[in-house]
Amino acid sequence: MGKQAKTAIKPTREENYPEWYQEVIKASDMAEISPVRGCMVIKPWGYALWENISRVLDDKFKATGVKNAYFPLFIPINFLEKEAAHVEGFAKECAVVTHHRLEQGEDGRLVPAGKLAEPLIVRPTSETIIGDSFSKWVKSYRDLPILINQWANVVRWEMRTRIFLRTSEFLWQEGHTVHATKEEAEERTQMMLEVYKKMAEEYLAIPVITGEKSESEKFPGAETTTCIEAMMQDRKALQAGTSHFLGQNFAKASDIKFQSASEVEKYGWTTSWGVSTRLIGGLIMTHSDDNGVIMPPRVASAHVVLIPIIRKDKDKNMVMDYTNELADRLRGLSYYGYPVRVEIDDRDIGGAKSWEWIKKGIPLRVEIGPKDIASDSVFVGRRDKDARDKSAINKDTFVNEICNILDEIQTTLFQNALAYQKKHTRNIDDKNAFDAFFTPKNKEHPEIHGGFAMSHWCGDGECEKKIKERLNVTIRCIPYDGQNEDGECIECGKDSPKRVVFAKAY
Amino acid sequence: MGKQAKTAIKPTREENYPEWYQEVIKASDMAEISPVRGCMVIKPWGYALWENISRVLDDKFKATGVKNAYFPLFIPINFLEKEAAHVEGFAKECAVVTHHRLEQGEDGRLVPAGKLAEPLIVRPTSETIIGDSFSKWVKSYRDLPILINQWANVVRWEMRTRIFLRTSEFLWQEGHTVHATKEEAEERTQMMLEVYKKMAEEYLAIPVITGEKSESEKFPGAETTTCIEAMMQDRKALQAGTSHFLGQNFAKASDIKFQSASEVEKYGWTTSWGVSTRLIGGLIMTHSDDNGVIMPPRVASAHVVLIPIIRKDKDKNMVMDYTNELADRLRGLSYYGYPVRVEIDDRDIGGAKSWEWIKKGIPLRVEIGPKDIASDSVFVGRRDKDARDKSAINKDTFVNEICNILDEIQTTLFQNALAYQKKHTRNIDDKNAFDAFFTPKNKEHPEIHGGFAMSHWCGDGECEKKIKERLNVTIRCIPYDGQNEDGECIECGKDSPKRVVFAKAY
Repeated sequence: MGKQAKTAIKPTREENYPEWYQEVIKASDMAEISPVRGCMVIKPWGYALWENISRVLDDKFKATGVKNAYFPLFIPINFLEKEAAHVEGFAKECAVVTHHRLEQGEDGRLVPAGKLAEPLIVRPTSETIIGDSFSKWVKSYRDLPILINQWANVVRWEMRTRIFLRTSEFLWQEGHTVHATKEEAEERTQMMLEVYKKMAEEYLAIPVITGEKSESEKFPGAETTTCIEAMMQDRKALQAGTSHFLGQNFAKASDIKFQSASEVEKYGWTTSWGVSTRLIGGLIMTHSDDNGVIMPPRVASAHVVLIPIIRKDKDKNMVMDYTNELADRLRGLSYYGYPVRVEIDDRDIGGAKSWEWIKKGIPLRVEIGPKDIASDSVFVGRRDKDARDKSAINKDTFVNEICNILDEIQTTLFQNALAYQKKHTRNIDDKNAFDAFFTPKNKEHPEIHGGFAMSHWCGDGECEKKIKERLNVTIRCIPYDGQNEDGECIECGKDSPKRVVFAKAY
Repeated sequence: MGKQAKTAIKPTREENYPEWYQEVIKASDMAEISPVRGCMVIKPWGYALWENISRVLDDKFKATGVKNAYFPLFIPINFLEKEAAHVEGFAKECAVVTHHRLEQGEDGRLVPAGKLAEPLIVRPTSETIIGDSFSKWVKSYRDLPILINQWANVVRWEMRTRIFLRTSEFLWQEGHTVHATKEEAEERTQMMLEVYKKMAEEYLAIPVITGEKSESEKFPGAETTTCIEAMMQDRKALQAGTSHFLGQNFAKASDIKFQSASEVEKYGWTTSWGVSTRLIGGLIMTHSDDNGVIMPPRVASAHVVLIPIIRKDKDKNMVMDYTNELADRLRGLSYYGYPVRVEIDDRDIGGAKSWEWIKKGIPLRVEIGPKDIASDSVFVGRRDKDARDKSAINKDTFVNEICNILDEIQTTLFQNALAYQKKHTRNIDDKNAFDAFFTPKNKEHPEIHGGFAMSHWCGDGECEKKIKERLNVTIRCIPYDGQNEDGECIECGKDSPKRVVFAKAY
């Protein structure tokens, strides 16, 4: 290898991707693990990202007629039992509440007391508890559709956790709708998938493939699970959001019935759809580099940090006045409907400041010193360029141009991610080539492999299972935008009507 | 009694206040009880109110430098044990998680499995779990202050629950701060109390008394608990928000230490402060009448409903076009920084619509029929006036005036509530008069009593206890804005330097 650039994050992505991921989060100050097994603390810099993502999604949901509501955290066990596939999917990993108080035990320590007659589980998802409400809300076709969303925390007792990607507790939104017809429910499923795709591509700058899950990867209880799948920098896939057509499965389980216009009693058709704080993990693994996080401007926790450079006490007032005045002007601008988010870093800690902001992934860094002020300019660094590549820009020009610069960065991030995804996605028709594609070349880096294979699949779950057992590769989705051409199953050679996306996955 | 007006809510407030409260919530479609003991479902019309309240508070918090974050739902028991008063206060009513999966029992039903080595409790409040993070975040005086807020659900296993007022699970915000000095922490405690007072009075139109709790009513673990107390229409007090100065109690329990500028290791000083969905109950019990809820415009779920009146099919397009055009114009207006919130009720259900909106408490109802359109006017009903008191207003005038009309309603609601509070608050210096004030006159309405008594108290917890036992009356607060005059304790006759607020309370 040639010259080794000094990087802020150790190890680099190439050296050890999973460890790099932990380190980049630590260095960005976005989140930390908590003393509670598998639960995370989302720190202000990470939570602000979630606030921005939530706000965009909330607006998009409401624009389609969805309203927010809130349902209980706890679910009686017998609710879960109503849908057979559902209970199968969630019983293995749920937090169970069995008591409602603590009292002093014999050794003086507190022990659970007040045993509940019926244990409760902490919601892993809310189809059954919301279904119970829906069964009361729906009487007539006039009450339909019901379009509800909930912003909430959920708990799934994961054995192997990784911050943002897979945690025992996470934050998410879960949409739940009831419709009079199958067609309308299917249309809603697609509509919300489209919202997620737009969110991912236009805001998070993460290119995604939309499609349907195979039988084995479906949501427990769904008829069809549709999803957005993204490629991370280690070429693994991340399921970034799902939208489920639930048929009448949950309507029957929860007794959601309505009187049709012709006075016939019918079961409703339901959907559910969700994205979570996992999106933050996806954002980090799509855009960040060996110097830290890179935040896409449209959701960035902040857009720009102003760093006053004060070497002499006598300059202090002048520099701070200039900085504050610039901050006010920038905050008065609107970027995608919200004020430009400005941080001022006037801490007295010297030159480390700029690197801290690079690691945090802020799109723009602006240094302001007496010399810049003398020429009425500011010294601007962009997070999508080399850390040393900074340039002086006239202050008014900067104010006039900042929204364009932010959008340039946004576009660059998306284009880079798309190019990466395309580069590591390949049509593969030969079984040996397929196996080689997913076999690490370098034993020191077992995680590095080919990427996404677009290969034919006959539709048989047995072939899918064999591939998973041999290579730990799964069908990420049967893409909507796929290549509808005849071919032969990559595993068994039988006829196949279209290619599907095979990948290793988070 | 004179003529009995027909009301939409049965029973009326006078007939049975507690039942009226349940009925008014049902009729407004704001919330419902859930099948999970003590937990509520917040329906869209109720949740929108919470969204508006949250948004106002969130802006006000951020304006004081507070940032949002998120901490685990679960708290290890040994965390709770670290602060003696705290564990005493919360151990009696908490949900305890003891297992992490379910498996089929002998009878085929699911039973808890995977016992945890250490049980977890579902947070009733987060001082201890957040304190653990703070102990890692704080190293030096340069890291202070830390100003954090969390929007979250919490669980307190209440035995007697009442929707919005006291539920096992509720939504709230909890602010947690760490400061280098006692003075700064005390200042923050007062600053947030002031934010709550402004929120209550200027947005919820609920007049409040600010002050400090007596020793027996303090938050478990606090040095000082400050609060806002409001009078409901049954003259009982509602604690609507609290801001606690925690001294160094939790800093010592959680080991929150910092290096001072002179390099001495010191414990931090902490505060915490919160308001919850209980505010919605307070809003209902302050403003609503025997026809249903009345929402203060600044936080109302919606501001105005447009009700197209279509008696003939041929009118439909014209009326709907006119209605939609008016809706667009109204939505283009800004009321307290957000677009005017407009509902269109074009359901084909006849004359019941208007009454539904009255019960829901929307500030303005606008009927639009062919005759109104012919004169380019709309027919407007205000929720702060009699339901039959509607008047035609020129459409353009209405658009120009709507924000003023909303503010008129806001002011009327606050003035009415303030007049009610003043009317039922009395200086009482005689023990017999005090007892009589709190003794119901009418056995059929045991809840109706005098209201707030401003009486002298010597400061002795024994007197407080005797009064509570005899009358179920507590000291709601030692008011900041109180009458600092010498007097004699209403219970024991000993010297007292000021009056305190005595009341029955929720």
